[in-house]
Amino acid sequence: MAVNLPPPDPKLLCPVPGVELGVAMAGIKKPNRKDLLVMRLAAGAAVAGVFTRNRFCAAPVLLAKKHLRHPVRALVVNTGNANAGTGKDGLQRALTVCGALAAKLQSRPVEVLPFSTGVIMEPLPVERIIAGLPAAIADLRADNWLSAAQAIMTTDTVPKACSRKVRLSGGAAVVTGIAKGAGMIRPDMATMLGFVATDAKVSGAALRRMAKSVADQSFNCVTVDGDTSTNDAFMLISSGLGVDARSEKDRKILEQAIVEVSRQLAQAIVRDGEGATKFVTVTVERGRSEAECRKIAYAIAHSPLVKTAFFASDPNLGRILAAIGYAGIRNLDTGRVDLYLDDVLVAKAGARHPSYVEEHGVKAMQKPEFTVRAVLNRGKAAATLWTCDLSFDYVKINAEYRT
Amino acid sequence: MAVNLPPPDPKLLCPVPGVELGVAMAGIKKPNRKDLLVMRLAAGAAVAGVFTRNRFCAAPVLLAKKHLRHPVRALVVNTGNANAGTGKDGLQRALTVCGALAAKLQSRPVEVLPFSTGVIMEPLPVERIIAGLPAAIADLRADNWLSAAQAIMTTDTVPKACSRKVRLSGGAAVVTGIAKGAGMIRPDMATMLGFVATDAKVSGAALRRMAKSVADQSFNCVTVDGDTSTNDAFMLISSGLGVDARSEKDRKILEQAIVEVSRQLAQAIVRDGEGATKFVTVTVERGRSEAECRKIAYAIAHSPLVKTAFFASDPNLGRILAAIGYAGIRNLDTGRVDLYLDDVLVAKAGARHPSYVEEHGVKAMQKPEFTVRAVLNRGKAAATLWTCDLSFDYVKINAEYRT
Repeated sequence: MAVNLPPPDPKLLCPVPGVELGVAMAGIKKPNRKDLLVMRLAAGAAVAGVFTRNRFCAAPVLLAKKHLRHPVRALVVNTGNANAGTGKDGLQRALTVCGALAAKLQSRPVEVLPFSTGVIMEPLPVERIIAGLPAAIADLRADNWLSAAQAIMTTDTVPKACSRKVRLSGGAAVVTGIAKGAGMIRPDMATMLGFVATDAKVSGAALRRMAKSVADQSFNCVTVDGDTSTNDAFMLISSGLGVDARSEKDRKILEQAIVEVSRQLAQAIVRDGEGATKFVTVTVERGRSEAECRKIAYAIAHSPLVKTAFFASDPNLGRILAAIGYAGIRNLDTGRVDLYLDDVLVAKAGARHPSYVEEHGVKAMQKPEFTVRAVLNRGKAAATLWTCDLSFDYVKINAEYRT
Repeated sequence: MAVNLPPPDPKLLCPVPGVELGVAMAGIKKPNRKDLLVMRLAAGAAVAGVFTRNRFCAAPVLLAKKHLRHPVRALVVNTGNANAGTGKDGLQRALTVCGALAAKLQSRPVEVLPFSTGVIMEPLPVERIIAGLPAAIADLRADNWLSAAQAIMTTDTVPKACSRKVRLSGGAAVVTGIAKGAGMIRPDMATMLGFVATDAKVSGAALRRMAKSVADQSFNCVTVDGDTSTNDAFMLISSGLGVDARSEKDRKILEQAIVEVSRQLAQAIVRDGEGATKFVTVTVERGRSEAECRKIAYAIAHSPLVKTAFFASDPNLGRILAAIGYAGIRNLDTGRVDLYLDDVLVAKAGARHPSYVEEHGVKAMQKPEFTVRAVLNRGKAAATLWTCDLSFDYVKINAEYRT
């Protein structure tokens, strides 16, 4: 039951010249579902990546980071198994998959980036993945983004894909991306899996800077449950077949389009958060630094008590004050903190505002989307996160995940 | 549905000479339930306290800290309203309650310590509390600990109380304590509310050192949901009417008994954690420092994914590895981490152990109590926490808390 998240309209998903996608049903965890994706890139494409900072990062993450030093000709993504917590054997299995795909595409194993998502600490079923590759390769097409978005889903209920067109000085360019993720979501330098491609020509160095900057404005601003995944990866691809985006002005226009696509994908992950019934924007303003604003916003967004209050549309707003109070900002003067629920002023100077009527709080929280805004009144910095509520279904989904 | 937590046997609760307790039904939040507790102390009693570090600490916490500078003759505790997030008006209300009790006990307002627990950010109903004081005073008795434990319950399903007797060089001494708490539990320097008293004579300075040390070995080692309360307070009382415990040897014996009582109370809070069906000990061993071991133990104990796996008895142990990985220990070598579920070796050197059979994991997790043990193999430090699972009922209790 995703929050205001209709499935993507395939007509609005633009092919990216130089990027082909093919999917297959490889039976990795369950039969009869798309669970394998191959992306083939034009020669000369540039790829940049931002990866999880979880110390238990998965074998494919380690390998993808290493292979990024070489030109990239293909990406291979499987769901159903994360190949994390699998040690050296996991690395070998990921490499075997790269080798098998490289052989079929007449490229080298180091030119393939592997990605996995699914259950942690179980051995990757390499044979099934390799057996699925021919079907995925036969399916390679530029207009296959929706199918690709479906193939990377795990507990997602809605595929996540979107596109933007921009006009650069040399002509039109396109940005299309897909993402997956619904639980174990507190991206740290990236989301579960996000792939965004443009045909515009960007240098490798510029693309790397862009990937970091885009991640910080999109995937690094969402949290479902505070669990940073072992497999987070956000990949930014420039096929280079389109117009040049090397001037500073063009790069800015392009980056803005990439931010918009990535933010929409990141927000889609929250809207489709496991068990989510509410999409909540948490904004912390007038702090001394962006870091302290983010720290407080995360404390609010991760509090199980706040999240269950969201679920119940119960303006038990003291729970939000409590979360602000334990966020670890030692010298915070709570006597200056104001709290808003959408436009309703709930607390002024650290205490319930006399004008606040609980009906107004209930009314705001009953909406499927609302904003919690804390104003610290001690500086000029701000931060915004997107999160969801904690419902019965979150527990149900995660208690029954492997059954 | 508390985990292995029978109600305390009143016959095993020892009165503490010099400490009388009286309760009343003041109708603070709901009618016909005990919600007001008065404790009267003998003249010359010493009291030490450890309080929440939540920046939004409640008015009674601020006042109790201040009043601790004076001799303490009485404590007054109400449930149903936390008097937190209430600003200056909240302080005034707490002071009014102290004044009313002091007048009735022929003492001074500064000799009364106030405590509140319940809903945050609503005005304290002072009139109802004051109206309830005469009944509580009329009820003052030394053998009233169980009733006192009942009077401080909020979402607790079982009253929490226990006693120990110890022999000091001068003769026998007694330690009896009560506590409350079930949700908003991640004590930081204390628990929701814990009151432990002894008749043994301890100086104020020694009692203060003891309170901090005891809290670190008991209330500061439990977590239900990671939400540090605004009202946490752990009070240690020495009525001074019993034998002397001023020698170092006696102090150590006494402190050990206080630790045992406090630990039992702290564990009772977890056993009665909101919606808890499992009591889980999380131990992290062979780390470089106790701080890093605690950090990792908290990451495991707070992960909603790990906690729902506990609930489901699903040995989805990769979630535990993932939590270890994102705990923020930057230079952690995951290739050295071993993981045990009770005595079952699950992961060795960061990866699934070949001998591990999932049935063994399921068998361990199906028990109402088990231990998760992570061995970092990089030092000599260790830390242990006690926590519970995340069930449907946690969401239900907290979604419906105020209805």
